[in-house]
Amino acid sequence: MELFAVPDVPEVEPGDDIAALVRGRVDLRPDDVVCVASTVVSKAEGRLADLDDFPAGPRAREIAANLSALTGEEKDPRFAQAVLEESTEIVTEAPFLLTETRFGHVCVNAGIDRSNVPGADLLLLPKRPTASAERIRAELPAERVIVTDTCGRPFRHGQRGVAIGWAGTPASRDWRGEPDRDGRELGVTVQNVIDELAAAANLVAGEGDGGTPVVVVRGFEFGDHAGSDEHFRDVESDFVRQALRGWAYEPR
Amino acid sequence: MELFAVPDVPEVEPGDDIAALVRGRVDLRPDDVVCVASTVVSKAEGRLADLDDFPAGPRAREIAANLSALTGEEKDPRFAQAVLEESTEIVTEAPFLLTETRFGHVCVNAGIDRSNVPGADLLLLPKRPTASAERIRAELPAERVIVTDTCGRPFRHGQRGVAIGWAGTPASRDWRGEPDRDGRELGVTVQNVIDELAAAANLVAGEGDGGTPVVVVRGFEFGDHAGSDEHFRDVESDFVRQALRGWAYEPR
Repeated sequence: MELFAVPDVPEVEPGDDIAALVRGRVDLRPDDVVCVASTVVSKAEGRLADLDDFPAGPRAREIAANLSALTGEEKDPRFAQAVLEESTEIVTEAPFLLTETRFGHVCVNAGIDRSNVPGADLLLLPKRPTASAERIRAELPAERVIVTDTCGRPFRHGQRGVAIGWAGTPASRDWRGEPDRDGRELGVTVQNVIDELAAAANLVAGEGDGGTPVVVVRGFEFGDHAGSDEHFRDVESDFVRQALRGWAYEPR
Repeated sequence: MELFAVPDVPEVEPGDDIAALVRGRVDLRPDDVVCVASTVVSKAEGRLADLDDFPAGPRAREIAANLSALTGEEKDPRFAQAVLEESTEIVTEAPFLLTETRFGHVCVNAGIDRSNVPGADLLLLPKRPTASAERIRAELPAERVIVTDTCGRPFRHGQRGVAIGWAGTPASRDWRGEPDRDGRELGVTVQNVIDELAAAANLVAGEGDGGTPVVVVRGFEFGDHAGSDEHFRDVESDFVRQALRGWAYEPR
C-alpha cells in the first residue's frame, strides 16, 4: 500500500471543481482511495462565513459567558451561535463546546475552523460530507473518495485524521464469524477502515503551511468481507453520550 | 509513504525473539517504522494465562453476575478477575468492563484476548508495551518501533488500530505556533502520529486467519516539529473519564 500527496493543489476558492483540480495533477487508478481534506471541500462549496452572520441569541451568550469565565479568555458569543446553528445536539457546553453536527459527527465546535480561512472569519464543515464525496467521486477515475477531518478523542491525547464522508467504499470491514489464525471464530471485530484511511492520509498531508489537502491511497484492498456503513454512533449505542447527558463540568 | 506486511511470520511462541523473526524476513532501513501487533509481543513475552489462574473474588463475581443478567449470556467471573488484576481503575462495569490498564491504556476488558490463543484461555496485553518496543528496537536496524492494538472509541462505530507502546519516535507532532497556508498561526494542533501509524498499519495487517502481525511503514517523515510523548490521558485532562466516574449504566 502506498500513499502520496497530490502535488501543487492551489488555494481552493468557492465554486472550484475539486475533482478537476485532482484529475489534472495525478494519474488515478480505479482502485485508488482519494482522501480530500474537509477544508478544501468546504471552501469549494462556499462554506465560508463571518461572525456577523451569526447574531448571538440568549443560549449562545450564556455558553460564551460561561466559557469566558472558565477559561479567562473572552469567547465570542457569535462563534457559539455559529456552533449551535451547525449542530443538532450539545453534548457538552464546558470545558468546551462538543456537539453533534447535522450529519452525525460529534466534535468540538461543530468542526468550525477559524485558522484556515482567507477572506472570512469562519470555515464551516461541508453540509453533507458524504454527498460531497459522492459528487467528487462521480467526476474522478478513482472509485473511492473520503472526506477527512482531524479531531481529538477521549482517553488519548492529540488529534488524528478521521473520515466524515465517504463514497464507493463501506465504512467498515466486518470480520465477525471469520476464523482467526488458529481457526477460532473471531469475536466483535468491525474494522472502521475509512477512519484508518483518513488517519493514514493525515500522516502524509500534514497541517500548516506545508499542508497538502489531497492524498491518494493506492493498493488498499478491502478484500472479500462483509461491509457496513455504520460510522457515527447514535446515542442509543453510545454509553459515553449517555453518560455525558447527565453530566456537568465542575472546574477542579 | 509505503506500507507492507513482513511476510511469513510464523506463529510466535513464548521466548521467541521478535526482532530476529523480523530481521530475517525484511531488509529494514533506519527510518522505517516497524509496527508489531501486541498479540505477538504478548506471546513472545509469555503473557498467556488460563482462567483458572484467576480465582474470582467477590468484586469479580458481582461484576460478572451483573453483566450476565444484563446481557443474558453467562459471564465467567474468572475473566472479570483477570481484567481487574490487569487494571488500575474500573472506568465502567456495564454495559461492559472498561478499565485503565496498568500502563495507562483505557480499553474494554483490559485488552485481554480470548480468540487468538492456542494452548491457553487468555492472552494478556504486554506488561509495559513501551518497554517491549524499546527492546525490539534495540535489536533492529530500524529506529522506530510501535506496538499496536485495536480498540473501539466513543462517538464512532468500529475498531481501529492504535498504538499502545512506542520507541524511537515521539507520540505526537506538535504544530502549535506554526503558520498555516495563509500565514495564520495554528491553534490546538497536536497530531498523534503513533495512533495514525498504527491505524495505517492495521489496513495492511488485517485480522483473522490472513492476519500479518508485523507491518513496516517506509517513508514517514516526522519532520522538523516539536514532539511530545503525551499519549494516554489522565483523568484530570479527560472530562469523559470524569463524567464516567459519576455515571452508572441504566438499561433502556
